[in-house]
Amino acid sequence: MSVTDIDYPGRMTRWQPDARDRLTAAAYELYEQRGYERTTVAEIAQAAGLSERTFFRHFADKREVLFSGSSHLLDGMVAAALAAPDDATPFEVVTAALEAVSVFLQPRHPHSARRQALIVGTAELQERELAKMATLTAATADALRQRGVGDPTASLAAEAGIAVFRVAFERWVAVLPAESDATPIASTDVPLFLDVVHDCLAELRAVTG
Amino acid sequence: MSVTDIDYPGRMTRWQPDARDRLTAAAYELYEQRGYERTTVAEIAQAAGLSERTFFRHFADKREVLFSGSSHLLDGMVAAALAAPDDATPFEVVTAALEAVSVFLQPRHPHSARRQALIVGTAELQERELAKMATLTAATADALRQRGVGDPTASLAAEAGIAVFRVAFERWVAVLPAESDATPIASTDVPLFLDVVHDCLAELRAVTG
Repeated sequence: MSVTDIDYPGRMTRWQPDARDRLTAAAYELYEQRGYERTTVAEIAQAAGLSERTFFRHFADKREVLFSGSSHLLDGMVAAALAAPDDATPFEVVTAALEAVSVFLQPRHPHSARRQALIVGTAELQERELAKMATLTAATADALRQRGVGDPTASLAAEAGIAVFRVAFERWVAVLPAESDATPIASTDVPLFLDVVHDCLAELRAVTG
Repeated sequence: MSVTDIDYPGRMTRWQPDARDRLTAAAYELYEQRGYERTTVAEIAQAAGLSERTFFRHFADKREVLFSGSSHLLDGMVAAALAAPDDATPFEVVTAALEAVSVFLQPRHPHSARRQALIVGTAELQERELAKMATLTAATADALRQRGVGDPTASLAAEAGIAVFRVAFERWVAVLPAESDATPIASTDVPLFLDVVHDCLAELRAVTG
């Protein structure tokens, strides 16, 4: 154990609040520069000026840096689904869940675009992303069942909602070039994820109608 | 290399035609009896009375025994999508692809039920199954694009189709108890996958309509 692994109360107060953000920023830069597979946790911690022990206090492994927002996303979707009006149809419930996703994602557009580029290029990350989407689908279906919706309606409405999420997300992040040195575009140029979601929901209705 | 690894022309002719089926049957029994993770390729080969070398001539690894039908399924779906009438809507094209799946799956019901029970119980297999579904979705969307369907329509129709596949499949295999010693039920008791698919397609229409 090195001296940097010792938690001085004063140091905790000074450093802990942004350790997670610094580790995330360092990880993204290293993943983009030298590739996800070739980056180690030791390198991420060093680039962030923190210890490996601090890294593992925040993330289970280097993969989880890219999935740390998943539980917030899931909680937000489920809460929105459960909070929808009593007389909402299953599709309206799913729409409410996707509107909650929009609130979560909109300020994260540049980050989301970088994340997507990393995931598309790495099989291990694609698998993890598919597992995340399956978890979101299952949680949404469970929320519908809690509201009294039976099966297969609950499963199909949840699957349809996550399908829209997936397609809308890919369109939305495609707005920004996915290179790390891309010039940040003004936030007014970024389309609202909510608009893309509503377009895709309308298109799904048209397709199945 | 043991003597059983040598391919005598006469032996090839006698044994090769059913080697794949024997390996598959042995693998399923071992996976069910002692668990997927604890079963080795050597044990599967031995139980089938074949060499490891023969196993690897048929399957890349023990996981692929459970996914050897995937490429046939994909080819059948794509062929059906491309062969649909010129004036078919995207949803009708996807329906045609699912009807091709039904033809493929119907005679495989007991096998599909056993396979599903193994996959549900093993994280590594679930990941592989999700990847397979993502591949089917991408191939279906590509077939729609080849027919001149634009995006996001092609992506959404494909996602909706695979969502129906997934939900319908889970309902269909649930008919048979998933234990290996379950009494085989008469084929007349097994619902038509095609009927379950049509019910789910109608339900999806109702949900989004």
